[in-house]
Amino acid sequence: MTTAVRTEIDPAIETYIDERLAEIAPRVPDNRVTMVVFSGDLDRQLASLVIATGAAAMGMEVSIFYTFWGLSALKRETHLKGKSFKEKMFAIMTPKRLAKMPVSKMNFAGIGSAMLKSMMKEKQVASIDELFAMAREMGVKFIACTMSMDVMGISQEELVEEVSLGGVATFLGDAARSRVSLFI
Amino acid sequence: MTTAVRTEIDPAIETYIDERLAEIAPRVPDNRVTMVVFSGDLDRQLASLVIATGAAAMGMEVSIFYTFWGLSALKRETHLKGKSFKEKMFAIMTPKRLAKMPVSKMNFAGIGSAMLKSMMKEKQVASIDELFAMAREMGVKFIACTMSMDVMGISQEELVEEVSLGGVATFLGDAARSRVSLFI
Amino acid sequence: MTTAVRTEIDPAIETYIDERLAEIAPRVPDNRVTMVVFSGDLDRQLASLVIATGAAAMGMEVSIFYTFWGLSALKRETHLKGKSFKEKMFAIMTPKRLAKMPVSKMNFAGIGSAMLKSMMKEKQVASIDELFAMAREMGVKFIACTMSMDVMGISQEELVEEVSLGGVATFLGDAARSRVSLFI
Repeated sequence: MTTAVRTEIDPAIETYIDERLAEIAPRVPDNRVTMVVFSGDLDRQLASLVIATGAAAMGMEVSIFYTFWGLSALKRETHLKGKSFKEKMFAIMTPKRLAKMPVSKMNFAGIGSAMLKSMMKEKQVASIDELFAMAREMGVKFIACTMSMDVMGISQEELVEEVSLGGVATFLGDAARSRVSLFI
Repeated sequence: MTTAVRTEIDPAIETYIDERLAEIAPRVPDNRVTMVVFSGDLDRQLASLVIATGAAAMGMEVSIFYTFWGLSALKRETHLKGKSFKEKMFAIMTPKRLAKMPVSKMNFAGIGSAMLKSMMKEKQVASIDELFAMAREMGVKFIACTMSMDVMGISQEELVEEVSLGGVATFLGDAARSRVSLFI
Repeated sequence: MTTAVRTEIDPAIETYIDERLAEIAPRVPDNRVTMVVFSGDLDRQLASLVIATGAAAMGMEVSIFYTFWGLSALKRETHLKGKSFKEKMFAIMTPKRLAKMPVSKMNFAGIGSAMLKSMMKEKQVASIDELFAMAREMGVKFIACTMSMDVMGISQEELVEEVSLGGVATFLGDAARSRVSLFI
């Protein structure tokens, strides 16, 4: 039926409509969410994963771009061999994986972080590692910022396998076609 | 006049245009601003309310989604009765209402916060409580994140009356149709 | 050729298409990125300039709106004469220019900041002052928030020349027509 209707339209009109739509269509966002996760704090990382899994559950495409302290979320292990003194310092001071991160507030020697995790468990909220695994299974795309890796002396072998590498152009490419972009 | 012009158009063309527009129209944002307020710092909360009242004054729809430490902005009173030890700890360490919040920098025993408030008063900038009241009167929508309330043991009775409750889907529903989304 | 095709179309149809597009076109974003830089931390300021120069290199229009502690990035010099005691306090505690900023983490008496700068130099990443100069040359628009200047007692003479002044309406005007808006 639709095809029948379409064939009746003057090709000149179709061309005209195509031209007019071409002016705006490339700037209309896709059903997509893009986040920069800059912070290495447990609570902010948690917020980003709650948003990521929520958006994926709603059928949105999700990219998380990890940069600076945020890269902690992707660290599988810490290699010290072959690193310069400064690289070692950065390596030791950025925790590996999510479960070891501090909280942005109330972080008295890790009590805040322990309390938050304990409360989440009691309330049966998914833990940060569970959320990360869920996000991965739901197709959330994890990108590690290569410039941050370089500056902080982090190699790809230290990161979890699910991650791809990218620069600021990768982030902007995804963000420019997103309905929601957040810096966390 | 407009109606007269419209009736002249071939219904097949109208249908074709409708179909073509339906491909992009649902992803074109409304005149709307959505914010996640994650931080409980006075200065960041202040920034969110300045943006909210500014956007409302420009005729935009505004939603603020309060999560984690940001929930402090909505606390009317602190109930300790019936709370677990950990819930009490969270309750005591998150100030009630905006006027008691710390500043993110220079917060030497509250001096930074006092100074900022004193400077705002001198310069006749609206205080944080005035901004909150203004935002409410201008129709800004305040949403408390139910997951955060649950994890931190905050009940609805502890929150101001103007607030509605919502989850990540509520936030994403508003953000996906917003021209501006911010994580503060 | 295109003109020839266009002249064949019934003006009533053109008018109808114009009307239909006018419903959505004003809300379709331009190829633009707008940031609020609220933080005065070296690492966050760095992230904003990496995004700004990256976006400009990709042909996007970029505005950075500096507010609160973020204003440090624009400070050329600190004037104490004629300031009130509180204004002097703010002036002394907000560093002038980017090179003197602290890092958000690991800032043990400036060691974190020194280390980050030293690592960036070793890895031949542009320094923060180079990035700022690059951004300026690439046409990135720098706006200082007048309300923050007022509250913190900063005058225009204390800011670098490249900056223009604006309020929340300036920010929202740019952000509302941006594909990407970030609060940093």
